Amino acid sequence: MLIVQKYGGTSVGSFDRIRNVANRVKSLHDEGHQVAVVVSAMSGVTDKLIGMANEMSDAPVERELDVLLATGEQQSIALLAMALQKLGVPAVSITGQQAGLRTTGSHTRARIDSLDAAVTKPMLEEGKVLIVAGFQGVNAEGHIQTLGRGGSDLSAIAVAASLEADVCQILTDVDGVYTADPRIVPDARKLKEISYDELLELASVGTKVMQSRSVEFAKKFGVKFEVRSSLNTNPGTIVIEEHPSMESVVIRGVSIERSQARVTITSIPDQPGMSARILKPLAENEINIDMIVSNIASDGRARHSFTMHTNDLGRAQAALKPVVDELSDTAKIETEAGIAKLSVVGIGMRSHSGVAAQMFEALGEAGINIGMISTSEIKISVTVPELKIEEAARVVHKAFKLDSVS
Amino acid sequence: MLIVQKYGGTSVGSFDRIRNVANRVKSLHDEGHQVAVVVSAMSGVTDKLIGMANEMSDAPVERELDVLLATGEQQSIALLAMALQKLGVPAVSITGQQAGLRTTGSHTRARIDSLDAAVTKPMLEEGKVLIVAGFQGVNAEGHIQTLGRGGSDLSAIAVAASLEADVCQILTDVDGVYTADPRIVPDARKLKEISYDELLELASVGTKVMQSRSVEFAKKFGVKFEVRSSLNTNPGTIVIEEHPSMESVVIRGVSIERSQARVTITSIPDQPGMSARILKPLAENEINIDMIVSNIASDGRARHSFTMHTNDLGRAQAALKPVVDELSDTAKIETEAGIAKLSVVGIGMRSHSGVAAQMFEALGEAGINIGMISTSEIKISVTVPELKIEEAARVVHKAFKLDSVS
Repeated sequence: MLIVQKYGGTSVGSFDRIRNVANRVKSLHDEGHQVAVVVSAMSGVTDKLIGMANEMSDAPVERELDVLLATGEQQSIALLAMALQKLGVPAVSITGQQAGLRTTGSHTRARIDSLDAAVTKPMLEEGKVLIVAGFQGVNAEGHIQTLGRGGSDLSAIAVAASLEADVCQILTDVDGVYTADPRIVPDARKLKEISYDELLELASVGTKVMQSRSVEFAKKFGVKFEVRSSLNTNPGTIVIEEHPSMESVVIRGVSIERSQARVTITSIPDQPGMSARILKPLAENEINIDMIVSNIASDGRARHSFTMHTNDLGRAQAALKPVVDELSDTAKIETEAGIAKLSVVGIGMRSHSGVAAQMFEALGEAGINIGMISTSEIKISVTVPELKIEEAARVVHKAFKLDSVS
Repeated sequence: MLIVQKYGGTSVGSFDRIRNVANRVKSLHDEGHQVAVVVSAMSGVTDKLIGMANEMSDAPVERELDVLLATGEQQSIALLAMALQKLGVPAVSITGQQAGLRTTGSHTRARIDSLDAAVTKPMLEEGKVLIVAGFQGVNAEGHIQTLGRGGSDLSAIAVAASLEADVCQILTDVDGVYTADPRIVPDARKLKEISYDELLELASVGTKVMQSRSVEFAKKFGVKFEVRSSLNTNPGTIVIEEHPSMESVVIRGVSIERSQARVTITSIPDQPGMSARILKPLAENEINIDMIVSNIASDGRARHSFTMHTNDLGRAQAALKPVVDELSDTAKIETEAGIAKLSVVGIGMRSHSGVAAQMFEALGEAGINIGMISTSEIKISVTVPELKIEEAARVVHKAFKLDSVS
């Protein structure tokens, strides 16, 4: 098989850990697989480099920051290649540039434009183990660029796509994707597989397995990948394009997001353009809002509610005040903090009716009040009092029998 | 003017020193010059990287060592570019690869094959200040290679050649090339200019201004360069192809080498092939010999004498013993330690007769015994007792009126 593995900064965070990774890679090579490994900078190195840049300038030019940061991964690949060679494995390190990873867009947060396997594929076929620097590439003008947060995951997906790998393994400090956070829901089970869209919806509500952009990138290029632990050799979770048999499971997982707050604006004249006028000052102040619910009250006036992180509540109120005053004499701002968001995600809900009812019923039976509700095609989210969020997660997890997923 | 400057590791050895270099470069830019700066890794960084490599393997593969070491200069160029940008100078960092520096030969000690100014020249013409990573390039297969000791000087000479620079300044911790070591000869004067060949001969006898290979490289490509201090703005010494007016100065400089030892083999049968048989075991034991003198004694038998570093004397004796025993019953090894070598160098001696006589006379008047003598076209070397070497240097320096060089 042709296997692409990606190890993050923690996995190569010390000389011992690099040796550990080398041993894991050697096992795959010994079993006769073709292997390409994508690595991040050793943990702490990127921060140290940023510190050096800040010594030189309070606002270092991003092009130069990329040149500086790219050295972190370049060091990792050389060290891992050395560790493998010491074990007798014919490893060879490859920078993003050498791997033909072409980027586009802004420095420090570039996008992957293309990846050319002209250099890497023949090396693999010669029996070499490739150690590829994650997080970096060069743009069409030959400038080094980095890919921003989660960039090494992106690199791994791109390498897997270009090499037409059989497997792409994202090695991380979690075992895989669970039906819920096991620290909150002790019965949570590790999923064997999950669709890109389900993982995206779970990621957007706080399951921090991978950056959404990496999942989207994998989906775009149809790269199947597996999230698994770098500390053991247990199978992880396969992330894959959805297929019909996946729909037999109604709900794939439950996810929570804490520290939410709600803002409601009441008595808005029911005229076109009102929503935009309200949301604009929030966008200008870079306040991310999440759930948006709007309806018409019995007096014929509109109500808009939206949620955000509690930390943003004060700034949001300040930003909204002048707009609301302008809207009408009667419009008012109501706020509520101390709430949390509970979401259930699953492509199966498309073909199963009554999912929302089942969720609300379970919460109701547990005496947990629901605040706002919002739904997407494969997700239902509700707000509940923050004090009740863990209980709510357990109740819903049980209601959908996620503890017996195999 | 188009000016290339090279700063070594000490000159960029701290954030403050990088800022200092940035200020110097800014001055040149402000005066309207086009500037390309070649920098080494911050002092200590290369050793630290080698230490990391040794953690991974007691014999790290040199290809990977090059990938690792090249990050040192890549960090320097980014930091210096940031410091310049902070001062409002449009600086841009360039790796060896981006600069089109093509290498050939072995990893960790590659040679420069060519340098393509296709990327760098247009950038300069746009008004950019180029900050180029020294010590590194890529070979024809796209592998990163480093140039070994003195590699950044080589890079600077290559950059100057490719850009057809008006001036190439090697900034270092000495002020320039002196007629003698000022710590030994207080009257020593800084030279305004010196020919490549003179500097090569001086370098070979211990004047550690630059690695010989960089001087040879500059000579090969006809790159005029200036050795000057990174701590002040005094003019340094211009190193240049010799021109007729340089011959008016008979001797350019005096140089010494301490801790020498002599081995003499006596009563060698005067037959072809004897020299080779004697030198072969020394070469096999990697003992560098320096002066070689051979003549025929009154008994018709040959004597071979050669000098080496004192530290090699024991190994040399051991290596020679079996050969000498084989040569004849009468051949013997004589040794002498505690000697030093004094050399005078100058292209002017080609056109001035009596230089050797003048040197020997001065030493004789001072009561300093001469041991071995060897001469090249532009150099005369003698051995003297090590205790007398400093006095000998002063006597000869004065005899050739080097204290009044202007």
